[in-house]
Amino acid sequence: MKETTIILRKAGKEKGALKLRNPVLIVGLPGIGLVGKLATEHMIREFKAEKVAELYSPHFPHQVLMTRKGTIRMLKNRFYVLRHPKKGSDMLLLVGDVQAVTSEAQYEVCGKMLDFFDSIGGKIIYTLGGYGTGKMVDKPRVFGSATHKDLVEQLKKQGLVFGVATGSIVGAAGMLLGLGRLRGMRGACLMGETHGGYVDAKCAQSVLKVLGTLLNIEINLTKLEDRAKESEKFMRKMEKEVERQRGLGGMQDGGLGYIR
Amino acid sequence: MKETTIILRKAGKEKGALKLRNPVLIVGLPGIGLVGKLATEHMIREFKAEKVAELYSPHFPHQVLMTRKGTIRMLKNRFYVLRHPKKGSDMLLLVGDVQAVTSEAQYEVCGKMLDFFDSIGGKIIYTLGGYGTGKMVDKPRVFGSATHKDLVEQLKKQGLVFGVATGSIVGAAGMLLGLGRLRGMRGACLMGETHGGYVDAKCAQSVLKVLGTLLNIEINLTKLEDRAKESEKFMRKMEKEVERQRGLGGMQDGGLGYIR
Amino acid sequence: MKETTIILRKAGKEKGALKLRNPVLIVGLPGIGLVGKLATEHMIREFKAEKVAELYSPHFPHQVLMTRKGTIRMLKNRFYVLRHPKKGSDMLLLVGDVQAVTSEAQYEVCGKMLDFFDSIGGKIIYTLGGYGTGKMVDKPRVFGSATHKDLVEQLKKQGLVFGVATGSIVGAAGMLLGLGRLRGMRGACLMGETHGGYVDAKCAQSVLKVLGTLLNIEINLTKLEDRAKESEKFMRKMEKEVERQRGLGGMQDGGLGYIR
Amino acid sequence: MKETTIILRKAGKEKGALKLRNPVLIVGLPGIGLVGKLATEHMIREFKAEKVAELYSPHFPHQVLMTRKGTIRMLKNRFYVLRHPKKGSDMLLLVGDVQAVTSEAQYEVCGKMLDFFDSIGGKIIYTLGGYGTGKMVDKPRVFGSATHKDLVEQLKKQGLVFGVATGSIVGAAGMLLGLGRLRGMRGACLMGETHGGYVDAKCAQSVLKVLGTLLNIEINLTKLEDRAKESEKFMRKMEKEVERQRGLGGMQDGGLGYIR
Repeated sequence: MKETTIILRKAGKEKGALKLRNPVLIVGLPGIGLVGKLATEHMIREFKAEKVAELYSPHFPHQVLMTRKGTIRMLKNRFYVLRHPKKGSDMLLLVGDVQAVTSEAQYEVCGKMLDFFDSIGGKIIYTLGGYGTGKMVDKPRVFGSATHKDLVEQLKKQGLVFGVATGSIVGAAGMLLGLGRLRGMRGACLMGETHGGYVDAKCAQSVLKVLGTLLNIEINLTKLEDRAKESEKFMRKMEKEVERQRGLGGMQDGGLGYIR
Repeated sequence: MKETTIILRKAGKEKGALKLRNPVLIVGLPGIGLVGKLATEHMIREFKAEKVAELYSPHFPHQVLMTRKGTIRMLKNRFYVLRHPKKGSDMLLLVGDVQAVTSEAQYEVCGKMLDFFDSIGGKIIYTLGGYGTGKMVDKPRVFGSATHKDLVEQLKKQGLVFGVATGSIVGAAGMLLGLGRLRGMRGACLMGETHGGYVDAKCAQSVLKVLGTLLNIEINLTKLEDRAKESEKFMRKMEKEVERQRGLGGMQDGGLGYIR
Repeated sequence: MKETTIILRKAGKEKGALKLRNPVLIVGLPGIGLVGKLATEHMIREFKAEKVAELYSPHFPHQVLMTRKGTIRMLKNRFYVLRHPKKGSDMLLLVGDVQAVTSEAQYEVCGKMLDFFDSIGGKIIYTLGGYGTGKMVDKPRVFGSATHKDLVEQLKKQGLVFGVATGSIVGAAGMLLGLGRLRGMRGACLMGETHGGYVDAKCAQSVLKVLGTLLNIEINLTKLEDRAKESEKFMRKMEKEVERQRGLGGMQDGGLGYIR
Repeated sequence: MKETTIILRKAGKEKGALKLRNPVLIVGLPGIGLVGKLATEHMIREFKAEKVAELYSPHFPHQVLMTRKGTIRMLKNRFYVLRHPKKGSDMLLLVGDVQAVTSEAQYEVCGKMLDFFDSIGGKIIYTLGGYGTGKMVDKPRVFGSATHKDLVEQLKKQGLVFGVATGSIVGAAGMLLGLGRLRGMRGACLMGETHGGYVDAKCAQSVLKVLGTLLNIEINLTKLEDRAKESEKFMRKMEKEVERQRGLGGMQDGGLGYIR
């Protein structure tokens, strides 16, 4: 595998599976406070969205995960389709284990994602994430940053707060909007106010509330907190595993230590 | 986006917009003391030069900037056209947010810049920068380093100081001249004597004075200092932002910390 | 050499040399405790397996080894053919000096390995390695992780322990299975329980016992310990050499220190 | 410039300039004790060898050097032709400012060098370097490591010492032999015994004595020491320059510090 590759799953190959009505891309890749990931995975499970494609990349870490069932699985990103329950826009949801680390890799991976979204006629992108402040708040606001000026005005009315968040948006949450805009797409990043040092379910709730308004869809948030705990547990396990591997010293990383 | 790409803006697409008389490339990318950037941006604003093209690169940091208006914008470099007010050479001015970091990236980005300059018939390049000495001086000299011996003699007469600056010129200010020379172009680097530890408007003034002589153009320097303060403010804001992000620890950088 | 290249040796070019019966790939590249490497090299020597191909890669360290005979040799990986003594599957054995270090490189190198295995009709892969625990045990268990659920059930019966090892498998031992699965191949990683901080011959024995059962082949383990000592000696020599080179300071690495 | 490029100089373009009799490649790129570089540059100046080609690479540092004359020059490697004064083999001499740093880059650069040598019918390579021991000796031995066993026997008789140097040869001195061998070329690395912590003219003399025997050419060594002092002076200047640049702190490296 020389470059990032998107493989259609069975559901994605079915006739009409990728014929979406005014498709909106919702992106929740791992990032600050895992806010975007929590929010998007909650939607997928809540609405039983169907997995249509997987993305693999040589820019993801060269390791496989061992599952509880005794099988291995590669690190990947996943696309799901969620048809709007009423007459709104259909959704393509993007989640995953990791993001690419280097700039060159992010440009390539985001480019492939946009190619795919483009191929199904997509024009609108909402990326979800956290805006780390180092502080804890009771009612996290949701900050916005949009691709176009007229969108700013429109989104303000729907609950997004503009003019507070400053600086830069690192990773796919920013790059998909930046590169998308160069292709004529429109969209915004929805950043929930979060501490940044822990998995923040409350913040993900705030983000989902605003997103629900934008998409004109009702999202039941009852199970979000439980799912956040699951995510945190998974994360802690991963961290423990990383420590175990580090403890092995020079022989780790394929044992190259002994020859370099 | 797999490689560095130059996109023509509306102004650049207009008929005759890129028909320049003996075009000279003036380069002011970020570097020591922000000297080159200050000087070139001052010219652009002073003469209301017109933006004709933008350069994007997968070798630039994978992040977008949030603007005060609530919109996002990608990191980029920009080309402006400035027609000589009298009968001198027209100018293509190059400024930007960043430079590429690695050698391979610098070679690619500088190559694309030269392709573009070549396509409009350009032959002469002046790169502007600072020469850091760690000392503060009242009247900063402007050191030179040229692509050809005969240019050295000519530039000495126009106020550039040769034989003092030693060592190497890192980044686009050097590479555009080195790679340009391999393509038959000529030019010089104008390095203002600067401390190196702060944004140096006085040094940028010295550089612009010499550049004015070289180009036979009068440059009003009144507003330079104010603009330098703006640049410094922007810079400080960015630094603060970087600190905010660093404070977020392992979850920063797209939250990859939890899995590697 | 721009990319990873597999070169057939004389034996591999002979007629029918690569016509294997239901070929199984056995992988023992350097890793935790050198378990996989010890085990696979033992098989090669015990059964006098024939070298059929060598793999070179620009992603391996840019150095050559000096042999005792006064010659140099490049770092490489090697493929051997071992025909099953009875009616079982023939084996392609893969060993080597090093693994690639970065993700991109691992994806490329593993891709080339699978291309080669695919070209001889291969479908089944067993990768051998160690699972580092930081503890010493008398009777190392052999943990398994398989590509498919039905394989898990089957392998449990043959002595592999599932459900204990958690986390991820880094490097070729994991990637060959992950990427192989995407191509329709099947297989498992056999991980011997090991401390992780030293070369573990006893663990390699455990792994070979299970592998013998899987392949229905009797493996004499008498000489394994002696061979492990040899491997350890080679490793210590390499480490000493690395220290010698480090002691040379800035002039090492091709003397680039003086110019950067 | 996307990849390493060799450009013929005027002398190299002249008719017959590259028609060499049994050409031997002599390589003296920067490395331990600058031994190989000193030795090869001495030959070039002593015999007034003619520059026939230059090699540029995007894998070399992205900077230009300022010369005393006020001009800039790119970092590069250089090929010279030296015709054997009697009936021996003609020589292609390779020297340079730097070597590539990463493995991938070394494989590419060495590949291009071998392409060029191949294009003029070359078959034999001698790479010159130092073997760092951390000790100072009165009469530095010259250790050898050859591509083929029969060469070892032959070179022993001509003064090279085998069986002492162990470990690996890092960089072009090793890779040119390793990659050359895969193309059917033959050769050896001549490593002078050296401390490793300073520029070692005496060691370069030892290496040149053995090389003179191998090539059946008399090399006058009178001026070698003076030239070594020049090299050392250049090196010290470079180091001082590096310190000057480091002193500039975060604004160095093209001033990227302020935005990342």
